[in-house]
Amino acid sequence: MKFNPLSNDHLKELESMVSPDRFSTGVSILDLHAKDQSAHSACRPEVVLWPETASEVAAILSYANRNRIPLTGWGSGSSLEGNPIPVCRGIVLDFSRMNRIRVIREEDFQADVQPGVIYQDLNEKLRHTGLFFPPDPGARATIGGMIANNASGTRTVLYGSTRDYVMRLVVALANGELLEMGTRASKSSSGYNLINLFVGSEGTLGIVVEATLRLAGFPAEYSAAVATFPSVQAAAQTVYDLKRSGLNPAALELLGPECIALMNQVDHLGLNVAPTLFIEFHGATTSQLSEVLDTARDICEARGCTDFRPGLGRAERDRIFKARHALGEMIQHNHPEHKILIMDVAVPITAYTELLAAMQAEVAPHGLIHYTLSHAGNGNVHLNIAGRRDDPSEWALVQAVSERLVMKAIALGGTATGEHGVGLGKRKYMPTQHGAALAWMKQVKTLFDPNGILNPGKIFPE
Amino acid sequence: MKFNPLSNDHLKELESMVSPDRFSTGVSILDLHAKDQSAHSACRPEVVLWPETASEVAAILSYANRNRIPLTGWGSGSSLEGNPIPVCRGIVLDFSRMNRIRVIREEDFQADVQPGVIYQDLNEKLRHTGLFFPPDPGARATIGGMIANNASGTRTVLYGSTRDYVMRLVVALANGELLEMGTRASKSSSGYNLINLFVGSEGTLGIVVEATLRLAGFPAEYSAAVATFPSVQAAAQTVYDLKRSGLNPAALELLGPECIALMNQVDHLGLNVAPTLFIEFHGATTSQLSEVLDTARDICEARGCTDFRPGLGRAERDRIFKARHALGEMIQHNHPEHKILIMDVAVPITAYTELLAAMQAEVAPHGLIHYTLSHAGNGNVHLNIAGRRDDPSEWALVQAVSERLVMKAIALGGTATGEHGVGLGKRKYMPTQHGAALAWMKQVKTLFDPNGILNPGKIFPE
Repeated sequence: MKFNPLSNDHLKELESMVSPDRFSTGVSILDLHAKDQSAHSACRPEVVLWPETASEVAAILSYANRNRIPLTGWGSGSSLEGNPIPVCRGIVLDFSRMNRIRVIREEDFQADVQPGVIYQDLNEKLRHTGLFFPPDPGARATIGGMIANNASGTRTVLYGSTRDYVMRLVVALANGELLEMGTRASKSSSGYNLINLFVGSEGTLGIVVEATLRLAGFPAEYSAAVATFPSVQAAAQTVYDLKRSGLNPAALELLGPECIALMNQVDHLGLNVAPTLFIEFHGATTSQLSEVLDTARDICEARGCTDFRPGLGRAERDRIFKARHALGEMIQHNHPEHKILIMDVAVPITAYTELLAAMQAEVAPHGLIHYTLSHAGNGNVHLNIAGRRDDPSEWALVQAVSERLVMKAIALGGTATGEHGVGLGKRKYMPTQHGAALAWMKQVKTLFDPNGILNPGKIFPE
Repeated sequence: MKFNPLSNDHLKELESMVSPDRFSTGVSILDLHAKDQSAHSACRPEVVLWPETASEVAAILSYANRNRIPLTGWGSGSSLEGNPIPVCRGIVLDFSRMNRIRVIREEDFQADVQPGVIYQDLNEKLRHTGLFFPPDPGARATIGGMIANNASGTRTVLYGSTRDYVMRLVVALANGELLEMGTRASKSSSGYNLINLFVGSEGTLGIVVEATLRLAGFPAEYSAAVATFPSVQAAAQTVYDLKRSGLNPAALELLGPECIALMNQVDHLGLNVAPTLFIEFHGATTSQLSEVLDTARDICEARGCTDFRPGLGRAERDRIFKARHALGEMIQHNHPEHKILIMDVAVPITAYTELLAAMQAEVAPHGLIHYTLSHAGNGNVHLNIAGRRDDPSEWALVQAVSERLVMKAIALGGTATGEHGVGLGKRKYMPTQHGAALAWMKQVKTLFDPNGILNPGKIFPE
């Protein structure tokens, strides 16, 4: 996709569509919208606009479309696969001024929100209602970004991903139309389900301007445990056993010893440095949870668990999950001289042990620095691999290792991306993973965005 | 949409694509594929074929497409809105010979099935595994039909609808291509979600030839209760209270006294003839469920519940739910001289009481025979209204009442169809419910089926 640079006339017209304080071509502002939290190269947009209303968004899209100007939505820049990097430059729409929670319909378990709302802020606002929005990617992601990416996280094993919580959606289309989809009823069999095309489309089909989210009841009780294992394989097999047990954990995370060591060092957690499972259960009563934890302990110990610490208090649980969520940043900070490739693949749970073994087999012989983080209950693994910035051949090796492992995950019946999206880094796997379906995805893209202005360069291989 | 009748050459060619014993133009066979269980008028297809493989289906579609022959998929004919009635005639593909459960991957909680599998047969086959496929439309529906219709039922309030259980799908497209979508991983953010376009599209975008279904763990324990109320309004308000309580019922059904009387008469259930809630809970232990039932009783009694019978045994529970599932047929059998209009709308739970009140207000003044059945936990109501066959003006009144109530449900933020689909009967409401989105649905239809051969006359108003 080839686009021409913006002219002064374009810029003047765009400025007039918002207001001078919501328009910037300043270099520092452009730099802030040039990269996400991945290792993908930065690319500055030509202009950043901060819309405040859906009609402003629609008008800007219509203008961009008529003038063939690339346009990319921007939440908080917390994505991990280059998803919002404006590789064809053009306009970035920053949604930080569209961050209102319009209404919480507590008694319908629903909230109407603008795309710039940070999900933690929504959950903070919901605290007194006993409801929450479950998907938890960890970083301070916006709802718009989460919808664009079908974000998920540690609680997805029980609660599902963002897709499962979008009931109604308003998107601005490339032609400037505002398209409303879905219903506030909790079920429907009426017409084609267009919403799910937009969820996970990474801003390439339309730009979310409002969403009605389904909320879940906050569990009456919850309880967490930490289980230590002699090997990653033993921990992985336990994940599989726990999944089969029907205990329905609300979180089931596997961390390699190198992750634990780092978390201990940064947050003084005092955990055993070994392959470790964090397990959380949600339930109605403490006595029920206590039974569940007893069963979980038996399952862990049958696989050689050397230390099982159940019944973590709220404070300790929160401390561990905070450290878990911060791990990505910790790893980068701990290796300032390295670039970190953050792999994100998911496989059926029966293939999980094999995938972890393949990962060990790939990284160990090369002595690459690596960290194994896993939303294990979903068979979703993030292998973070470090390559020295000043050593292009090591970085090439890191990429080659990653490529073999992604192909392995696909061969195991899995997916090239469990939750980080395709962005830039996973485009090359799309033909292998989707086969003929990719051409149909492309036709859907052409239907909704015939000039290809929306987040160009993403999802589809060049 | 205008199609020409099939020529003898067409019929000969179609016969050669299957085999003589899987081809029929016999009148009695055509009649068996001319109507579903709704009151919509029958319309005979011109030929019925029984494909046995995905490639046969693909080849037949390709032929039909090249020759502009209408083609409609057929599961078990149990739908309730005219969905598979071949109103433009042409070919019906009957999937009763593609009814193999290909593989149950018990340890991945998945099964690969052909579209002609009856869902009760799948669950019977799964019984020893401790897993089940939760959506339960009641009738002996096929998986293909359930996917086409996004079917749901009494358990949807806890387990969701068919859409939530389709991980991977193979469909035959109008052009004869077999399109495979989805993944066996339990989560994915890879590319556009095409699957959900096909789920609920009523065979108008493609024909399902294989599906990978997600399975759920069968609950360790379950318990049911019957609660009797002095009025439908009191029962409806209790539904709302139970939903807010966070008790997460696995079924929450409201039946009017006329339904109870009929069930008693046919199945000798001995229930109180009054507005009644059937409530079911699933859980890990009996002690937990016993606490939950105590709380449910308190909630019911606070709304004036006159009789609360908890702790139904398995046999009694099954008897009641069997009668519940058979109600549709019982009603028709009980009124042989009437046609029954089966309304199916859903609203947000806060609007549920208002919707029920509007229904009473509409039917009462006219003295129309009516039955109120409701998947109340989802705000989904089926008001069955009877009109004498020999009295066109009464049937017109029934239709007018229904129309006002569907418009009311949409105005309350709900949907024209909670689970029966659009079929023939709900087409006229699509512009009101979907607004501008309907034109985009039409464009999606044109993309996948440019000649409009797939189940023509459905979903879109004329």
